[in-house]
Amino acid sequence: MSPTPVTMASPVGPATYSWEATNEEVAARYGVPIERIARFDLNTSPDAPELADRIVRAGRFETSLSEYPPSDYRRLVDAAARRFGVEPDEIVVGAGADEILDLVGKAFLPAGGAAVVPEPTYAMYRVVTEQRAARVVSATRLGPEAAYAMDAAAVRAAAREASVVWLCSPNNPTGLAEPPGVVESLLHELDADAQADGRPAPVVVLDEAYAELARATLLDLRKAYPRLVVVRTASKAYGLAGLRVGFGIAHPATIAEIAPYRPPGSVSTVSVTVVAAALEEDGWLPERVAAIHAERERLAAGLRQAGWAPGPSVTNFLLVPFGTPARARAVAEMLLRQGMVPRTFGASHPLADHLRLTVRSPREDDRLIEAAAAWVWEEPR
Amino acid sequence: MSPTPVTMASPVGPATYSWEATNEEVAARYGVPIERIARFDLNTSPDAPELADRIVRAGRFETSLSEYPPSDYRRLVDAAARRFGVEPDEIVVGAGADEILDLVGKAFLPAGGAAVVPEPTYAMYRVVTEQRAARVVSATRLGPEAAYAMDAAAVRAAAREASVVWLCSPNNPTGLAEPPGVVESLLHELDADAQADGRPAPVVVLDEAYAELARATLLDLRKAYPRLVVVRTASKAYGLAGLRVGFGIAHPATIAEIAPYRPPGSVSTVSVTVVAAALEEDGWLPERVAAIHAERERLAAGLRQAGWAPGPSVTNFLLVPFGTPARARAVAEMLLRQGMVPRTFGASHPLADHLRLTVRSPREDDRLIEAAAAWVWEEPR
Repeated sequence: MSPTPVTMASPVGPATYSWEATNEEVAARYGVPIERIARFDLNTSPDAPELADRIVRAGRFETSLSEYPPSDYRRLVDAAARRFGVEPDEIVVGAGADEILDLVGKAFLPAGGAAVVPEPTYAMYRVVTEQRAARVVSATRLGPEAAYAMDAAAVRAAAREASVVWLCSPNNPTGLAEPPGVVESLLHELDADAQADGRPAPVVVLDEAYAELARATLLDLRKAYPRLVVVRTASKAYGLAGLRVGFGIAHPATIAEIAPYRPPGSVSTVSVTVVAAALEEDGWLPERVAAIHAERERLAAGLRQAGWAPGPSVTNFLLVPFGTPARARAVAEMLLRQGMVPRTFGASHPLADHLRLTVRSPREDDRLIEAAAAWVWEEPR
Repeated sequence: MSPTPVTMASPVGPATYSWEATNEEVAARYGVPIERIARFDLNTSPDAPELADRIVRAGRFETSLSEYPPSDYRRLVDAAARRFGVEPDEIVVGAGADEILDLVGKAFLPAGGAAVVPEPTYAMYRVVTEQRAARVVSATRLGPEAAYAMDAAAVRAAAREASVVWLCSPNNPTGLAEPPGVVESLLHELDADAQADGRPAPVVVLDEAYAELARATLLDLRKAYPRLVVVRTASKAYGLAGLRVGFGIAHPATIAEIAPYRPPGSVSTVSVTVVAAALEEDGWLPERVAAIHAERERLAAGLRQAGWAPGPSVTNFLLVPFGTPARARAVAEMLLRQGMVPRTFGASHPLADHLRLTVRSPREDDRLIEAAAAWVWEEPR
């Protein structure tokens, strides 16, 4: 019954199943003052937008905190529909994008079924699949020379036995979007294969958690492909990960199939109010994205100058190769001893010789650049 | 694949699947100004504790809203452990009690399995069971003359084929706790039956959402019965339904079996901070519970004087019989036309001739009492 333990590959915490270590855990384990902890491992924004603080402190929400949130999240749904350029009945709201993945699993992935995961990618697709007592069919991505694009032919072949295909573009942890046209071609082929086989096409989840940072979306594909579910979040460019709000966007008929699995109120009233306002307010997000882009390029240049080789990225994180898993582990330990938490990958992970580093504030990024410049690799004796 | 549509039996909204109508929907449908809407259907508290407003407006939370909530909810777990008198490793946190039910389903209810539900009870046990593609074995409760207690013999018999038993005490919507000793005896018998049959005992969920209001808990039974999962919530006596925080409490080994299914952060940072403080702060909850008790008795007396016959209750709601479903429907319509929303039960529900009415503020309750006094039943022609 139990799913395979999650290997989120946190560098701390030896538990077979562990999410990212908390600031407290890192501080205790590495003997670093907690205020020195910097999270380069979570792909969050360095700060929340000013409007969040303003609205929270005003203390006025959709409804009293003693009441359940509005069961239809109406204002939030309307704000998201306007911002994303879709209709309200094309949206389902969840407690973070993770709940959207869970709802898709519940609606479309039966026990004993199968789902395609182009790996390496966000770990939650595998978790959700295995929690459904369904099988992961892994379709290994192409290498760095091909920008870690999915192997569309392998995904297509694997999808013949699957009811769900989990895509992520831009892909986490590799940092780039699928090449132009590839997702659309795949959707077209999956439809054709399904028709040829006389079965329904699989539901394709396209996780666009980093879409605002990439300034690109494939949302329009939902019109031609009703089995496409695009996932968006308030946790990345919007800088509101602590509020736990995510969206699924699809053809109304597909949303209607997901809706019976949605709990009536998993998102708090405070979150509904703040994220609705963040979606309604114009102007601030493009500014923020531009700042993150500039800081990403500054961080990448600083790391390159220090001798590291961060890959290209359209997101708010950099994937950095270190040649061997031992070197990557050594760099991670060096950073952790200074309170900087990188994202590591377990020994059996195809990116075990890499670290993933989130673009943070200039101040935190300067610490990272300095540490990189000071680092000297000593062969283990 | 789809579960049976949920019959939350909201009086408005004809959709086959619908949660409670929002204030806006009721106002629009009944032509009532929205500020006149009073929710007698949700068993929430009439207001949030003052401390919630104070903490939210201070705007200081566990971590920045741009970061994910602490993945272990440490401060919240510690506060809950102290308040409930259990150890931190006996607690799992969810986005409302509903998420705890979902996690129990994921951990213990396989597709094709079965769960026992002593009905009528909280609708979500059936929803979660059917969402797991598992089967509900209904064990009808005894009647009003037996305080709607569960039929323990029927539950015991049904449990022979089940992996989960959903109990609710005090029971919603009937308002009373199981008689003393009954739950413990059942747990003992289920263990004995499992041993005799050579299979694991079913997991027994004991939903104590109304425990603080009843001033009684069976939490201690977890020591002798490691397969018991007690569910608690911040949504009822604590008056914080809008923050979506619930708890599962059980033997550490059982919590460890649930934990792999818990998403790392379904509860917002604001909710974590406020509910932790509400659990930490002494004194205010007993006062609030005493006030709700006094108001419940005042409301019940007022309704009795108006000729209605509310049943006894140890909770914050009253179950009121009206003799026939037609009369109950007529009363519901009369209340709705004045902006008061009762909980109704669908035509096929065993309580179709009843309404459930939440104890609200004296002001709202006075409106209800007046409406009851003014109501005259006219036989339909």
